[in-house]
Amino acid sequence: MSLRAIKYENNTLEILDQLLLPAQTKYISVRGVEDGWKVINKMQVRGAPAIAIVGCLSLAVELKNEKFESKKQMRQEIEGKLNYLVSSRPTAVNMKIAAEELIDLANQLSKDDSVSLDEMKAKFLQTIEDMLAKDIADNKAIGDYGAKEILARVSGDHLVRVLTHCNTGSLATANYGTALGVIRTLHKMKRLEHIYCTETRPYNQGARLTAYELVHDKIPATLIVDSMVAAVLKHRNVTAVVVGADRVAANGDTANKIGTYQIAVLAKYHEVPFYIAAPFTSVDMSIPSGDHIVIEERPDREMTHVGEHRIAAKGIACWNPAFDVTPASLIAGIITERGVFRPEQLKEQFGQINK
Amino acid sequence: MSLRAIKYENNTLEILDQLLLPAQTKYISVRGVEDGWKVINKMQVRGAPAIAIVGCLSLAVELKNEKFESKKQMRQEIEGKLNYLVSSRPTAVNMKIAAEELIDLANQLSKDDSVSLDEMKAKFLQTIEDMLAKDIADNKAIGDYGAKEILARVSGDHLVRVLTHCNTGSLATANYGTALGVIRTLHKMKRLEHIYCTETRPYNQGARLTAYELVHDKIPATLIVDSMVAAVLKHRNVTAVVVGADRVAANGDTANKIGTYQIAVLAKYHEVPFYIAAPFTSVDMSIPSGDHIVIEERPDREMTHVGEHRIAAKGIACWNPAFDVTPASLIAGIITERGVFRPEQLKEQFGQINK
Repeated sequence: MSLRAIKYENNTLEILDQLLLPAQTKYISVRGVEDGWKVINKMQVRGAPAIAIVGCLSLAVELKNEKFESKKQMRQEIEGKLNYLVSSRPTAVNMKIAAEELIDLANQLSKDDSVSLDEMKAKFLQTIEDMLAKDIADNKAIGDYGAKEILARVSGDHLVRVLTHCNTGSLATANYGTALGVIRTLHKMKRLEHIYCTETRPYNQGARLTAYELVHDKIPATLIVDSMVAAVLKHRNVTAVVVGADRVAANGDTANKIGTYQIAVLAKYHEVPFYIAAPFTSVDMSIPSGDHIVIEERPDREMTHVGEHRIAAKGIACWNPAFDVTPASLIAGIITERGVFRPEQLKEQFGQINK
Repeated sequence: MSLRAIKYENNTLEILDQLLLPAQTKYISVRGVEDGWKVINKMQVRGAPAIAIVGCLSLAVELKNEKFESKKQMRQEIEGKLNYLVSSRPTAVNMKIAAEELIDLANQLSKDDSVSLDEMKAKFLQTIEDMLAKDIADNKAIGDYGAKEILARVSGDHLVRVLTHCNTGSLATANYGTALGVIRTLHKMKRLEHIYCTETRPYNQGARLTAYELVHDKIPATLIVDSMVAAVLKHRNVTAVVVGADRVAANGDTANKIGTYQIAVLAKYHEVPFYIAAPFTSVDMSIPSGDHIVIEERPDREMTHVGEHRIAAKGIACWNPAFDVTPASLIAGIITERGVFRPEQLKEQFGQINK
């Protein structure tokens, strides 16, 4: 069974403490919004979709056990608690968007006289639980579409070799993963020969988190440092590269973890197809191209230290962009829960949804 | 003044303890071959040329203070002590080659009746001291040729920006450096605007050693992780990439620190010229092409740990090749102390030397 970073069943919520990974595997019980705020704020849970889902589920756990005197009281409490959860990591936009949607829903239900207090509560809880289910279902659909696409690259029942970057698995999503979801599906189908995962400096999400998930799921894998990508592509007969996305612009240019762009260039040089795997919500039609994506620069310390241990010479200046932009021209396809699209097909696909 | 890792003057030898870098700058006194053996064995000095020079200089220091009864006695002692020094790091081929040459010399001088005991000693010491001087002179010639080559890429008195990988400076050579020697010369000429140096995982020679040298010499520099190379080449208007070499094959294919090959691919994609800087002795005409170079694979621990601290998930397999091979087709020029050659010119150049 694939690693579960978020366990929600019988009205109890537990999350895998990512601060202790990879050294220790320990689940923390989240009993309500106060616990939810803490695990997000302390970064025991990370990854934009995962943060939003854990925050909302912590509210569900709390609401389920509570008795309300009126719909109005319930609405007020929902609004207050969601705003409190947003304050746990103000830059995590998914939690903010989810909070806004749920506050809207609470307002609507509160105003609708045909809905009773119990019905309001049930409907509200169901909406939160559906978020978790939808994220997992979307990831599995991404996995299915991606596996089919990559398998079309080999003849007969040949096995495939895949290279990935950063962490896009159970530890970054509700469960299962996007690019790592594709890899999980290939493995389940017994069609994955091997996966190469990059360390992903400076924050080592590949070495710490992806490697952890792969070991847990017993997926045949090899860790490489980021500078070995070309050597692997040259010597190891890799079928495809699959990575995640933070944001996809309207023209298909894609912002993702620093290092993604150069892997795409290297894939092109070695004639290995390069795929993005991401939920369709990552496509932002308001951004015409990658030139309009602002790249966050992170503190030098991420590069100069490992824990308390300094690894770089004192006094050296650093450049630490968190992301880079891969131009659409290097992308063979964008794997979403709606199918696999070439970058130039995104606009058309978006038009169809909005019809 | 550029960093000096090996200080030899007034018959005293001191070396910078590289095990303490970058945290501490401390010189160790080397009083004879026993000290020489220790600093090589403990890796307080590293880098193939540096090891050979420190080993031979430790013998020079010891011989200078000794009184010999006969040329034969001197010859025997030289042979014994050199073999002892070779045993300090048996894989360091430069020390072995230097020892063989010096033993040959001692044999010749011992047999030659026209040479007195004092003359033999003086001649022998002079040969060792010449090794140090020649390595520095060669590096400075590489610096001059390389700087001229790179400056020819810009018009007028424009400044240049250079990217380098690993450590090829005072800490890997007798002093000054090869690729870093080119950068030092550009800086001295006040024509270097900026240098970008890669961290160079997994052993971090860039972050620890190159960054240390650049800070010491006050050369304007920025440290990046290995996955940021493409982003730098795209956005920072880099004039040229210059790296070192472990071995250059007859056709110009070049083995160097892992990661070099992919930097060459990225340079090609961004139309930035990619140069190798190395002494002409790195060219090995007995190796027809890069396919014949055996790549050493190093222990997983270099990738999974920083000091005692584990940074990768337990149980993950690793691939840790120490070097990769850059095909001649990606190399704009090989900068040597004899001039800058295109890969296909090496054979001709070699022929001229051997005439």
